[in-house]
Parts: sequence; C-alpha cells; structure tokens
Amino acid sequence: MSAPKKVVLAYSGGLDTSIILKWLQTEYGCEVITFTADLGQGEELEPARQKALMLGIKEENIHIVDVREEFVRDFVFPMFRANAVYEGLYLLGTSIARPLISQHLVALAQKHGADAVAHGATGKGNDQVRFELSALALDPSIRVIAPWREWDLSSRTKLLEFAEANQIPIAKNKRGEAPFSVDANLLHTSSEGTVLEDPGVEAPDYVAQRIVAVEDAPDTPEFIEVTFETGDAVAINGEALSPAMLLTRLNEIGARHGVGLLDFVENRFVGMKSRGVYETPGGTILLEAHRGIEQITLDAGAGHLKDSIMPRYAELIYNGFWFSPEREALQALIDKTQEHVTGTVRLKLYKGSVRTVARWSEHSLYSEKHVTFEEDAGAYNQKDAEGFIRLNALRLKLIATRNARVAKKG
Amino acid sequence: MSAPKKVVLAYSGGLDTSIILKWLQTEYGCEVITFTADLGQGEELEPARQKALMLGIKEENIHIVDVREEFVRDFVFPMFRANAVYEGLYLLGTSIARPLISQHLVALAQKHGADAVAHGATGKGNDQVRFELSALALDPSIRVIAPWREWDLSSRTKLLEFAEANQIPIAKNKRGEAPFSVDANLLHTSSEGTVLEDPGVEAPDYVAQRIVAVEDAPDTPEFIEVTFETGDAVAINGEALSPAMLLTRLNEIGARHGVGLLDFVENRFVGMKSRGVYETPGGTILLEAHRGIEQITLDAGAGHLKDSIMPRYAELIYNGFWFSPEREALQALIDKTQEHVTGTVRLKLYKGSVRTVARWSEHSLYSEKHVTFEEDAGAYNQKDAEGFIRLNALRLKLIATRNARVAKKG
Amino acid sequence: MSAPKKVVLAYSGGLDTSIILKWLQTEYGCEVITFTADLGQGEELEPARQKALMLGIKEENIHIVDVREEFVRDFVFPMFRANAVYEGLYLLGTSIARPLISQHLVALAQKHGADAVAHGATGKGNDQVRFELSALALDPSIRVIAPWREWDLSSRTKLLEFAEANQIPIAKNKRGEAPFSVDANLLHTSSEGTVLEDPGVEAPDYVAQRIVAVEDAPDTPEFIEVTFETGDAVAINGEALSPAMLLTRLNEIGARHGVGLLDFVENRFVGMKSRGVYETPGGTILLEAHRGIEQITLDAGAGHLKDSIMPRYAELIYNGFWFSPEREALQALIDKTQEHVTGTVRLKLYKGSVRTVARWSEHSLYSEKHVTFEEDAGAYNQKDAEGFIRLNALRLKLIATRNARVAKKG
Amino acid sequence: MSAPKKVVLAYSGGLDTSIILKWLQTEYGCEVITFTADLGQGEELEPARQKALMLGIKEENIHIVDVREEFVRDFVFPMFRANAVYEGLYLLGTSIARPLISQHLVALAQKHGADAVAHGATGKGNDQVRFELSALALDPSIRVIAPWREWDLSSRTKLLEFAEANQIPIAKNKRGEAPFSVDANLLHTSSEGTVLEDPGVEAPDYVAQRIVAVEDAPDTPEFIEVTFETGDAVAINGEALSPAMLLTRLNEIGARHGVGLLDFVENRFVGMKSRGVYETPGGTILLEAHRGIEQITLDAGAGHLKDSIMPRYAELIYNGFWFSPEREALQALIDKTQEHVTGTVRLKLYKGSVRTVARWSEHSLYSEKHVTFEEDAGAYNQKDAEGFIRLNALRLKLIATRNARVAKKG
Repeated sequence: MSAPKKVVLAYSGGLDTSIILKWLQTEYGCEVITFTADLGQGEELEPARQKALMLGIKEENIHIVDVREEFVRDFVFPMFRANAVYEGLYLLGTSIARPLISQHLVALAQKHGADAVAHGATGKGNDQVRFELSALALDPSIRVIAPWREWDLSSRTKLLEFAEANQIPIAKNKRGEAPFSVDANLLHTSSEGTVLEDPGVEAPDYVAQRIVAVEDAPDTPEFIEVTFETGDAVAINGEALSPAMLLTRLNEIGARHGVGLLDFVENRFVGMKSRGVYETPGGTILLEAHRGIEQITLDAGAGHLKDSIMPRYAELIYNGFWFSPEREALQALIDKTQEHVTGTVRLKLYKGSVRTVARWSEHSLYSEKHVTFEEDAGAYNQKDAEGFIRLNALRLKLIATRNARVAKKG
Repeated sequence: MSAPKKVVLAYSGGLDTSIILKWLQTEYGCEVITFTADLGQGEELEPARQKALMLGIKEENIHIVDVREEFVRDFVFPMFRANAVYEGLYLLGTSIARPLISQHLVALAQKHGADAVAHGATGKGNDQVRFELSALALDPSIRVIAPWREWDLSSRTKLLEFAEANQIPIAKNKRGEAPFSVDANLLHTSSEGTVLEDPGVEAPDYVAQRIVAVEDAPDTPEFIEVTFETGDAVAINGEALSPAMLLTRLNEIGARHGVGLLDFVENRFVGMKSRGVYETPGGTILLEAHRGIEQITLDAGAGHLKDSIMPRYAELIYNGFWFSPEREALQALIDKTQEHVTGTVRLKLYKGSVRTVARWSEHSLYSEKHVTFEEDAGAYNQKDAEGFIRLNALRLKLIATRNARVAKKG
Repeated sequence: MSAPKKVVLAYSGGLDTSIILKWLQTEYGCEVITFTADLGQGEELEPARQKALMLGIKEENIHIVDVREEFVRDFVFPMFRANAVYEGLYLLGTSIARPLISQHLVALAQKHGADAVAHGATGKGNDQVRFELSALALDPSIRVIAPWREWDLSSRTKLLEFAEANQIPIAKNKRGEAPFSVDANLLHTSSEGTVLEDPGVEAPDYVAQRIVAVEDAPDTPEFIEVTFETGDAVAINGEALSPAMLLTRLNEIGARHGVGLLDFVENRFVGMKSRGVYETPGGTILLEAHRGIEQITLDAGAGHLKDSIMPRYAELIYNGFWFSPEREALQALIDKTQEHVTGTVRLKLYKGSVRTVARWSEHSLYSEKHVTFEEDAGAYNQKDAEGFIRLNALRLKLIATRNARVAKKG
Repeated sequence: MSAPKKVVLAYSGGLDTSIILKWLQTEYGCEVITFTADLGQGEELEPARQKALMLGIKEENIHIVDVREEFVRDFVFPMFRANAVYEGLYLLGTSIARPLISQHLVALAQKHGADAVAHGATGKGNDQVRFELSALALDPSIRVIAPWREWDLSSRTKLLEFAEANQIPIAKNKRGEAPFSVDANLLHTSSEGTVLEDPGVEAPDYVAQRIVAVEDAPDTPEFIEVTFETGDAVAINGEALSPAMLLTRLNEIGARHGVGLLDFVENRFVGMKSRGVYETPGGTILLEAHRGIEQITLDAGAGHLKDSIMPRYAELIYNGFWFSPEREALQALIDKTQEHVTGTVRLKLYKGSVRTVARWSEHSLYSEKHVTFEEDAGAYNQKDAEGFIRLNALRLKLIATRNARVAKKG
C-alpha cells in the first residue's frame, strides 16, 4: 500500500501520541493534522497546541475542540436512557467516547482532503476496534493507521529512545515505567495495567484519582434531587443545567462522597480478560437516578423489554458498534420508551453509596388508589385475581396432569 | 363448589393467619392442618404451636419445620447462580420463598389426604399468584383457598371484631393500624404499605429493621473472603459452611455494615406498581461476590448469554413461575455455565457498600500473559487485530457505501 | 354494576351477533349501536344493515365501514415488516384484525356517548382478550360486555331457542351443529372446532374454503414480481397498488396455486392448546417476498436483531397487546431497520409452494466484487481472515487451556 | 514460524484437496496424514485412498471413516431439537458438518503426534472459521494451515499448472471453469458461485442435483408418519431406524417430491453477503415434523423460550461456535425442553411442499375437554377470563389514564 499523504491524528499532547505524530512524519513523510478533544478529561489542552507546533504541525492543521456538550448530549445521555452496563457493572465510560472522536477525525479528514486517520490505541485493546469500526462506518474509503500495530517500538526503552532521538520532550515521571495507564473523560477515569495486572491483588489506593476514598468522605449524608425530561437529566436541585454542566456537577458531588469506584475484570472484544479500575462518580448517580424515575414512569411491558435488550445494547457499545444499524435500531426502541420518563428523583449520597429515597412525577403510573391496603373504593376487584391466576395456572396444570399420566404408564 | 373437608394452611402464628384458621373452621367446618416454616425469619416458632393448639388444631395436624437449609440450597443458591435481579435492583427475597412453602403445603395435603391448601396473601399482591401457581403446578387437582379474596372482612375493624368474637388473642401493638406490613426470611426483610405508600415521601428510619443505619456502621471497613464451588458459595474466610449457615453469616456481616437496603417501586404481576423497602444484607454481598468470581472464571460467550436471559429468569421467579418448564430450562442453561465458577473473592464492606477488591481461582480464564502491556513472548500477535477489525468492519463499510450511493441518487 | 345505557356492538350480521344484539336489548334495555367492518372477509355487508334495522336498530346507529385499506396499511403491513410468525408457523391473521375493530368500537362509543362496547367472542379464546385489552388501552373507562361469558345460553339448543323466541332469522344450514367455526378477513381465513377438535385426525378437505386444493392447482408454475419500498409491498409485476388492493391481488394468485394452507396446534394465551386450519394465500407470498428483499437490503446486524425479537413481537400481537408500550417500542425498532428495504423480488408459485428465485435492488448490500471466487482486485484480503479467526478463537483457546489444566489437577 | 512436521489434512480426494496435499508436501516438506469422512455425500471414497497413495501418502496415514451415524446423532439431531434455521430459512447443512470434521482432525493429530491440521476452505467463506474455531476449541495448541490464505495459486490457471507440474490427475470436466462450487453431506447439498453470483438472476435448473424438479414430482401426494422420542426422530411409518438411516430415508422421500429447495442470500460471518442454492430434502421434512410434534407436547412457556433463543443458537452454529460454552449452555436448555417431545406426526408431501396434517402422542398437552365449543363439564370456567383480562389490562388502563392526564395538562 502506498504511503498516506495527509493523516488526521487523534492527538492528546502526551508522550505517546507525540511519538506517533513524529513517527507518521518520518515513516510516511506525510502531513499531519492533529485533533485534540476536550472531553472533560480535566487537562489543560493549550500545551498540546504548543507541542504540536514544536513538532512542526502547521497552525491551521491543529484542531483543539471542546466537545463536552456534544459528548454528553449525543452519546452519554442516549446510552444512559438504556441503563446500559456491560457485564453487570461497567458503565462504558471509555467505550462511549471513542465513536465521537472518530466522527471528528473523519470529518476533519474530509475537510482537509486527508487520506487517513490515525490513533494511539494498542493492538490488544478494545479502543482500536472502537476507533476503526466507527471511522469505517462513517467513511468506508478512509484508511486507518494504528502505529502500535505497525511499528517496531515494542518496548518502553525503544519508545523513549525514539523520543530522544526526535527531540520529543519527556516528562520526568515518564522516564520510569508508568505504574498503570489512564484514560479520562467527563464520564469516567479508567486505570489499567502494571500494578493492576494481577486481579487477585488489591489495587493500591493511589490508583483512584478522581474519587475521594470512602473513609475520607463526609460523615454526613448529602441529599440531592435530579430532574428528568423524556429520559434525560435536565436539572439538579431544581437548577436547570446543560448536559455537560449537569454531568460535571454530578461528578463533583459523587467524587466528594466516594461514589462510583469499580474494580472490575472484563471480557475484551478481542478475546482476553483484563482488569481495570473505573471511577464514574456522576455516571453512577445518573444511573441510579434514571432507574429511580423509570420506576414510577415506565410500565412493566416497556421496562422489561428494555431490560431484556440492554445487555446486547451495552455489548454493542463496548465492542465499538455505536455506528451500526443494530445499535441505531435498539436506540429507536429505547428512545420510544422514554417519552414519559419525566420527573424528579431524590437521592442520598453517603460514603460510597448512592440510593434513591423518593421519586415523583406528573407522568407517574403509580396508583396509590390501586395499591392501598385500605378500602380502595372499587379501584381493584380482588376477585379478578382468581381468574387471572386460574388461567395462568391452566397450562401448568395440564403439564402436571400429563407428567403424572406418563409417569404412571412408564 | 362443595366445602373442603381438610385444609392445609400456611400458618405463621400471627394475627392474620390465626383469623384465617378460625375462618376456615367456621366458614367450611373443615379440619385444619397447619404448616409453619422456619425460613430464617428470626422469630420463635413454638408460640405458633401453642396458638394452633389453643385454636383447636390437633397435635398431629401441627407442622413446624426448619426449612432453612432446603430454602438456601434448593431455591436461593440456584437463583443466585443467575445473578437474578428484578427490574435492575430487587433481589427477589420474598418471591423465592413462596414456591418452597407451596411445595410443603402440597406434600402435607397429600400426606393428610387434604383436599385444599390455604394461604394468607391478599388479592392485590404477587404472593397469591406465587403460592397458587406453585401449588397447582405440583398438584393440578389441589384446591387453593385464599380467604382474603373470599371473605367480607374487608377492613381492619372487621378483622379485629372477628378476632375478638372468636377469642383470638390480639397483641397490643396490633390494635392500632400497623404502620406497614413486613415479610422476612433468611434472604431478606420486606416492608410495604401505609407509611410507604407515597413513593415521593422518604421511608421513615424505623422501617429498616434488620440493617444498621449506614451512619451507625463501623468507621473502619471489613474485608471478607467468600469461596465458591461450581457457582455456589461454600466458605467465608476459609471456613466451610452449609448453605443456610453461610447466608446467616453473610447476613450478620452485611447488617453490621449497613449493606443491602433498597427503596424500590416495582411492577407487580397483577398490573399495579407498589413501593417497598427491602433489606437483603447477605444476599447483596453474595451477588457482588458471585459476580466477582464469574469475572475470572466465566468466559464472555457464556457470560453474555446468561446476562441476556437473566431478566426473563428473574421475571419468572417474581411472577411465581418457579415450577414451570421455562424456569427449569433456563436453570439448566444457567447451571451448565457454572461448572467452573469456583474460586475466591475478596470484598470490602464499609458503611452501606460492598465491593469486590480481588479474586483468584484455579479455574481462572484471566491470562496475564496475554493482557500485559509488556513483551508477551508471542502470546498475542497485535497484527491479528487488523484482520479482526477489517472483517468486523466489512458489513459497516458495505452499508456506508450503499447509503452514500442511494443518497446520491435520491 | 348498573346496566349500560348505550352499547356499541361489533356486529357481523350473522346469527350469533344477532342473538347478542337482541340479548343486549332485552338484558339491559340499552340502546345498541352496531359496527360492521368490511375487513375483506368476502361477504356482502348490506344484509347486516337490513338485519340490524329489523332488530330495531336506528338507521343512525348502524355503521358499516370499509376498513380494508386501513387494516392492511396500519396493521398488516407493520406486522409483516417484522416477518412475524407465531410459534414458527402462524401468520396471525385473526390476531391482527382485533385491535382495529376495538379501535373503531371505542371511537364510536366516544362519538355516540356510549358507556360500553360488546363483542361476540367466547370466554375460551384469544379474541376476547384482544378485543378487551385494545379497548381498555384506548379508553380506560370504557366498559366491555362479553355476552358469552355472562349469559346462560350455554348450548346450541338454547341459543336457537332464544333466536326463535326473539324472531331472529336462522339460516337453514345453521339449524344443525356447524361443523366448525370460521373467521375471515383480507389476510386469512381460519377454521376451528368440531371436526377439527382431534389434532390426530386429518382435517376434511371441505374445511379449506379459500385456497384451491394443491392437487387442483395449475400444472404450470407462475412467476410474479413484488416490489417493496421501505419494507412495504407497493407493486406487483410493476403495477403500483394500494395496500388492500395489493393484498387482494396476492390472495387471488396464492389461492389459485394452493399457497398458504396451515394445519396447526397452537398455545392460546388463556392456557390451553387449540387446533386450527389457516388459509393465508397472499400473506404467505408476502412473507416469502419480504424475506427475499431483506436478504439483499438488510445487513446481518439489523437482521439478526430483528430475528431475535420477532418471537416476542409475534407473541404480543397474538396475546392482544397491539396497543401496548412494548409493541410500540418493538415497532420503532423494526421500522428503523426498514429504511432501505426497497427493491423487487421474483417468486415462483406452484402447487402449494412459493419460493424466491431472484431479487434485486438499488439498495442492495450484496457485493459481487467481494464474494466472487475469481480475482477480486483487492476488494477483500483473505489474509484478514487469519486475524479475524485468531481473535475469535482466543477465548475458546483460553477455555480449553483452563479446562485441561483443571482436569489434570482434578 | 517454523515449518510443520506432520499435518492432518481434511482430504476429499478431489482436485483441490489433492493440490493442497501436494502443496503441503512441497512447501513444508512435511508428512501428510489424510482424513476422508463419509458424511453421506454420496460419493465413492475408495478412489480417495488410491489417489492419496499415488501422492505418496503412507497406507497407515490414510483414514477413511464412515461418520454418518455420529454426524446425525451428535450434530444434526441436537440441532434439530432447536428447530434451528439461520436467517429464517437456512437449515445449516454445511455449518453443522464442520465441527465434526475438525473433531476428527484433532483426534488424528493427537494420535499421530502431528503438529498441525489443514483444510481446503478459502479465506472468504465461513468454513475456514468453523474448521478453525472448532479445532482450536478442542486443542488450543494445534496449528491450523489454510493453504488458500497462504499460497500464491490465486487463479484457476495457476492451480491447474501446479497440478500438471505435480502429476496430479485432472478430471476432464475440471479443465474448464466449474460453473459453481458444491458441498454435500447427509443433511444437504449446497451450491455457490459463478452462475449463482448474481442474486437477481434465477439459478439454472441444472444447479439442483439432489431434488427432483417440482414439475417432475409425482402427481399424487405421499403421506408418511414420523415418530419422535425425547425430541429425536426414531421411526418412519412405524419402522425404527438409526439416526443416519432415518435421515437417508427422509432424503429419498423428500427428494422424490421436490421438497427442500432453497435459493438464498445470506450474511456470512466474515461480513459479506453470498447467494447459495441449498437442497435439504430430509431435513425439511424433519423440521416440519419436529414442529408438528412439539405443537402438542411442548407447552407455551418452554416453546416460546426456545423460539426466542433459537436465532442466537442458529447464529452460533453458522458462525462456527459449536464447541463453545454458550452453544453448550443453550443446548442444555433445549435438551431440557425435549423430555416429553415424544409422539407421531403425519405429513403430506406433494410437489415441493411438506405439511403436517395430524399428530398424536401419549405425552400430549392438548386437552379436547378444555378447548371444546361444547359443554365442557366444568373443565374451564369462562368467568375466569374476566379476571384474567382485567388484570392484564390494568397496566394498560393506568398508562392510558396517565397519557390522557398529561395530554390535558400539556
């Protein structure tokens, strides 16, 4: 395959993607366009611009974009409508950011007439899959370059040598082996590798960076109220907030109370198990609150249907199929169920836990009139239960009769 | 329908089932056989015997049985193999006890030649369905009597009058209206009704009876280790325990740390929503631990399959279909996946939360050799990911090409 | 409950619903409004008007409506987008007509200020459930009267006596016991009961009324082309047709070739099994054709998702939950997948069978370039399959390694 | 990677696998062991022995094995218990044979101390995946060689040149381009490629080789009776037959009547669509018969559960995951449902169609007593339907009430 002429690189400004940037230039002699997204990872992004300039990227080829609102509105919120958790526990914080990044890479490639996009994910992980499936789903003719799968910089030593040989500045703490690898965005911070590689050994305390240790959380609980409209959170304690601002606020609250820490061994799409530590303070609150509001506004039929397809939906996002017809069809189903998911949930946060304690809504399906232990003024006729049970039991009775008949013969 | 001659009654010894006992005697003139199960509800059962004798039940017709081991071994543990939760959160503590009770009622009916069984569940709830479906699935010719659906004792006042008229002793605290209704067994305690009827109002603190308030839990975390064999917990901190003894121990630990409190609005099978407060200290630990051990011993294929059928499985148990061909078929699937779910999980308990912090097993599928960020000595060829992604992307590319072609024409 | 004042009756003009009409008048002394739908059952409907007038119904209370287009457009076609079959084989011809009838009954009740609707379905079947769930989902305050569950006309003899006593004309062939019961509409004709009651005995030839016996079908095959747009059939052999006209045409073609006969034992929602003979000539062609066009226009992801939820969707329709949030959510999913289901299918009809023999579309995802056994000019790199297989195999290898390790130890 | 020393080759005796045999010898200088299976493909296998000897294979390295009984008993029958069809129509005839072949290849490799297995599937198809996933699931250390993905014999011309250069005999009809590619076994014959590559063009008549043209089938129908025990067919017309003999007999009957022809475009696991013509005479009868017997012996709960997981099960087999924990777990579920699937089905075969016309069983759940339109002597109380419907309607009424309330406010 011929060398690419122009490549759009997902560039963080860190050591690894700086090495990739330089490697693209030297390996292919191509022009590099950088894309640096503010996903709410909590880092200053202007240094990425300086570093890119220093590495010879033209001013007009450097793109630093605040995508936080877009991230929460178009990716995080639709996903939370589904109460999506992967393998029972993981809130998909990394998975959901990748398609957004690819979407921008592809758009920039089209704008700049680039023939390739590049990313810094390794060949062992899920992120390469998520980046590339998304890119190819959006532009089937785009070329994707994954330097980690191509180059021969297969050890930390070689990488550092390459950096030094190419005048790439190396932060002091990067000289030694990093104790673990970190990914962060507005939804979560994940940590993997090195000190976490043995799942039988507890993660050191210093791994969790975002959430306060539960022991250090306040000794008094905090109560908050989250308001939803058609499935999306729109206000905290009555204050209307944009999607990203709302999630930011929930993150602050959750982090303060030690909420949202997960030590987890998961099945990667590429076939191996890996262990990660995830911190999802705001997301953990959001999931609990969304379940709380669905409890009174969603009926059993829609709710159980959603529950039954959720694992498939979560798996699709985890595996990188955000831009696929099946994810979109499932989204249509999920969104259809959210038309009345409107109302307010009251939550108690305390030393690592978040719990719904009350919920109310003009769209509530809860009927005190029906459920009361007291006289219900004819709302419900207990006699009806007799026929209900009898017909539900009919096939079970026919089975028991058959089984007894057969057993007697046999 | 003619009056029943002999009836086996699920008898707790409390006021309500004592009234039912007397009502059966007076309404039908029938002989009553009582069945009182020690499900681990934590109450003295001998008073039930005295009360039954006092109400005229013959000694040989009184059955008080310790079913705790059977309950945990044959009902709770099989259910926990599935990580079953109803509507995302409820651990099914009441649902899972009902089929066991019906099984005993039916067995006693056959032993005594009784023509009916009776229970004290009302016509609005799920328990009537669970009792009756189970009974009819086990004996299609049995008659089930549900006095709450039949009599005219439709108010608290009328009930108390009936009790007084029939010399049924009434505990002092039962004279006034009970603030809520409680069901308990080794797996959980549930509270419903009255002060809980408005889901927008927080449950009063006194509702939780079994679990310490999180604020009062110890200020230092506790770490425990739970060992599993083929999907079932068999030891705590290395000490082998029978099923019921193990769950009892987990209950003590969980209760002490405020673990397992749930305030929940659920969809009843009979069509209405209700709000309950559930306390499931040991079960909450058990679920977390089981998920933890599955993380390293269950592969993605079996795990995702289990996840996808779990909501249906939980719904069947909730709705009362424990003794149904579909629950049994799902159980066969679930049990098949548990053959290697063997190993140990380390958990941290602290002020209301329980979290897996480590897990290890001789049956582990986790491969440090594959997942390492370091040189992996050829265990994994990163180049393979390229083909993997390309073929996974192929259909997405064909779709994108088609869509672009059609859009251009259109 | 007090007697209804005005009742809208689903009235066919036949003996049974005429008896019901009279019974409503005499039992409740209420005003009756009749609704007679032309669903394409192939009967003259004007006699129903005469009969209603004769039974004392006011001219303005008689509604005879041609609902064929609405039936096919809003009910049959959406259902066929899902390739819905109940229990593997039944095309749901009766099930899908019931919600439409209820919709009209409820609308007429609101228009006339009626307080109840009534139908002629018995207490053993599915149709009562379908009528009533639909009516109540559309108007929760409506009362539904099901005379078959209420009156004491429990035998054929009593019914005929009531008819005679009330001057209801009885067709000669109705004097004796009907050999079976028939329901018909544009989608199908169903026959049940009497001569069909033993599922171990073949249905007599005279049961099938709509489809020619396969032995009598033409000795030469017929080829037709059906064109679809976004999932719905729009033309036959290039001729654009309205939904109802198209299905009518397919019925003629199918019936001529003996296509669409089904002898079937099904599970009713009310818990018993029943045996029916179904004739669905046009529907059988439509299902085959729809599958044919999906083969080239739907990708695997969307297609397999549809397949996996189809049984649930079909069950919902069968059980009467057309107007439910979960059916609507599933419909949103299904409709989302149909955006590109556009193109033409060629079918061969011959003596009872219909088979897709060719299909083509501007929206096709089929890529001859990729699939060819010949040189593919780089469209597909066979080497990619290696990585694809290796990563798919990785977890299976880890399992095998684990199992061998454990077995050796054990 | 070093060259393999000993390779077990799936060898048909045909031109392609003979070329592969020679290529393995010349490319790797390795010893080749051949495995030729009689899967009921209807070809003489002794010529394969002669050809292998001629190509220098040692007598003791040649394995020709009749696996027909094993194939039907351990693979085909378990699959048919599930009523498995891929994408609505395909009976998986090729898919189900591959794991058996791999099982034998791996067993021979272990017996001979071989370090690799080899197959003749190309890099574009599903079969490579099925062969290799099965082999690696059974022996994670085995090496799999897929010459089509490795060599440079990328055109028919080069292949023939290689054959000639290596004294491999070429049948006359192989000199020109084959019009299509064929795979056959006891379950089916598939044809793909060349003249079939345009799915918009009808398959020529000569493609179907196994089934008589429907126009040439007998003018009189044939009736047969198939008897099942616990889900598997055991007799035809009362004659007990072994699995392979039974399927052979069904094939004869079906082929004679033109039953089982399918023209199909499917989604391959590797991401592209392909078109095939499948002939599955006996399998088509077997599926219809199995559905027929399940109609009376399987209850709705188990049946609907099976239906809902079937698409996933079929997909797993299609994709090559026969030897996977998830297929095995699903099989446990399916097998559990078949305990009472015992009885006899009567079928009518006529000019391309097969239809159940009657079925009976000692294990029947069909209850004439319940379903009858006549007096049922109290078997069923029609009044029960009222409560059944009311409680099923309750949530729909609550939804309608809520929606109306919200609409009024809005």
